[in-house]
Amino acid sequence: MQKLAIGIDIGGTNVSYGIVTNEGEVILKKSFPFKNFKTAEIFIDFLTKELKNTFKDLPKGSSIKGIGIGAPNGNFYTGTIEYAPNLNWEGIIPLADMLNKTLNYPVKLTNDANAATIGEMIYGNAKNIKNFMFITLGTGVGSGFVANGEIILGHDGFAGELGHAIFDPNGRQCNCGRKGCLETYASASGIVRTVLELLSKSDEPSVLREISLDEISSKMIYEAALEEDIIALTAFDYTSYVLGIMLANAVAITSPEAIFLFGGLANAGDLIFKPTKKYMEEYLLNIYKNKIDIKASALPENDAAILGAAALVWE
Amino acid sequence: MQKLAIGIDIGGTNVSYGIVTNEGEVILKKSFPFKNFKTAEIFIDFLTKELKNTFKDLPKGSSIKGIGIGAPNGNFYTGTIEYAPNLNWEGIIPLADMLNKTLNYPVKLTNDANAATIGEMIYGNAKNIKNFMFITLGTGVGSGFVANGEIILGHDGFAGELGHAIFDPNGRQCNCGRKGCLETYASASGIVRTVLELLSKSDEPSVLREISLDEISSKMIYEAALEEDIIALTAFDYTSYVLGIMLANAVAITSPEAIFLFGGLANAGDLIFKPTKKYMEEYLLNIYKNKIDIKASALPENDAAILGAAALVWE
Repeated sequence: MQKLAIGIDIGGTNVSYGIVTNEGEVILKKSFPFKNFKTAEIFIDFLTKELKNTFKDLPKGSSIKGIGIGAPNGNFYTGTIEYAPNLNWEGIIPLADMLNKTLNYPVKLTNDANAATIGEMIYGNAKNIKNFMFITLGTGVGSGFVANGEIILGHDGFAGELGHAIFDPNGRQCNCGRKGCLETYASASGIVRTVLELLSKSDEPSVLREISLDEISSKMIYEAALEEDIIALTAFDYTSYVLGIMLANAVAITSPEAIFLFGGLANAGDLIFKPTKKYMEEYLLNIYKNKIDIKASALPENDAAILGAAALVWE
Repeated sequence: MQKLAIGIDIGGTNVSYGIVTNEGEVILKKSFPFKNFKTAEIFIDFLTKELKNTFKDLPKGSSIKGIGIGAPNGNFYTGTIEYAPNLNWEGIIPLADMLNKTLNYPVKLTNDANAATIGEMIYGNAKNIKNFMFITLGTGVGSGFVANGEIILGHDGFAGELGHAIFDPNGRQCNCGRKGCLETYASASGIVRTVLELLSKSDEPSVLREISLDEISSKMIYEAALEEDIIALTAFDYTSYVLGIMLANAVAITSPEAIFLFGGLANAGDLIFKPTKKYMEEYLLNIYKNKIDIKASALPENDAAILGAAALVWE
């Protein structure tokens, strides 16, 4: 009998879920908007009905092995979501227990970046790698660290927030309340901030000067860089410089064999991979030099969150 | 029958070794200078004779369970010392294998800071702690990280070099060849550099102005700080500021329950612990605040290296 996992990704905008094989094939995928659920109870009621409906569509002869959930501020140890700033619910929500009660399947939960990290390990490019880092360069910067073949969760379940390691204590204001976090430089919004800084400091011509500041996106910067726009190229170089130093510092802690980059900025390919590798090597301690691969994640962007959540079931 | 471990600490100046019980009692301790051994073979010959002699003094009814070695650039996976800059030997030396052949006991080897970290776990204050950091603030800065109850060794055995994480890429020259490593600020020599910088920048009176620059030591700065010397107090504050930020960044990766400080600067007590805790909390991401103890190591300074090496036998 084929065993299947349910992967659920809870975000502040949408909830998506899917049925996933142990080879990482998403055989069914659905989603619904998040914002209407004032309490976790109302959310669980709705999700339970959705899932029970979905279970009717299971392939013949298959059965559900378990449910995995990726959620902001998700705690693997307790299965709770704790004070998530982007969700409506206050305090500590025992979401895994709640869903286990209504559906009677084992439910595991962790934060979204750690889920994606486990996804890379179970389904992706990190299958036989016991020591690696996984970095998501999206709206923010998320991360997960695997050492000795196990994800580092920390004493409280919240390990792996490289996006909030501080690059410059007097640097850019971060929405976490502190200054100079990696996320304010090496994210989609970070590279936009870098472009604004470069445009203000230099008089270099740039197609980006023609766009209103509110509208500049990381995608536009990418397209300008492909056209050899100096400001855009410099922005990718500076982003990679900051990322390279912070990766070198993280290497000094966990000494991984590989670093996987995922998400919006990682889609810029050589524009981000090449200079990040160059700067990381430059700032690495001698014993770590020329040993570490920086690779693209193998997780397909649209399914990564569901795959990561589902991977919790197989881990 | 009582089982005993042999702990050997190899340093560029001295080699010390001892017989250690599984409770961490050092029942015999000896040392000899390192510098006379031109090759690893000559060293192993000498060490073997020394140890065979020592074994004659074993308590009646006891036996040796194994040998642990702490050494600079020691690799736990392979039992080799690799390109250690402070030892005479070039290349990769299979020291654990060599000693196993002459003595016929199991031999484990790792780098000195990781050995001390395991010492803290087996004999010290980290006995029941599954996620912690261990930081040595000595001539340099060493570190070890434990996650999920296991030391993080990395893919190559060289994880745990927080002393060479970069605080300021344009900062102080480090003897590793790069600039701005934590070690250039938060070590015994780092705080001396900070005092020189403060003396050059301010006209604040200080007893430290009376000492020739070559002679200023971290101990003199400590004594001046106890007398409320402003320059000395400011130096401790700045040292703690840099250390606090770098600890906060490391917490974002491994989320430990406790951080243990060991070595020369840690002996300054409240002068280093209080401001380091204050700055770390200030620069921690919200989810980590007010959860992490910064504590003194329980390892006695004179025996820590031997205890750490011996702990490898029991781990």
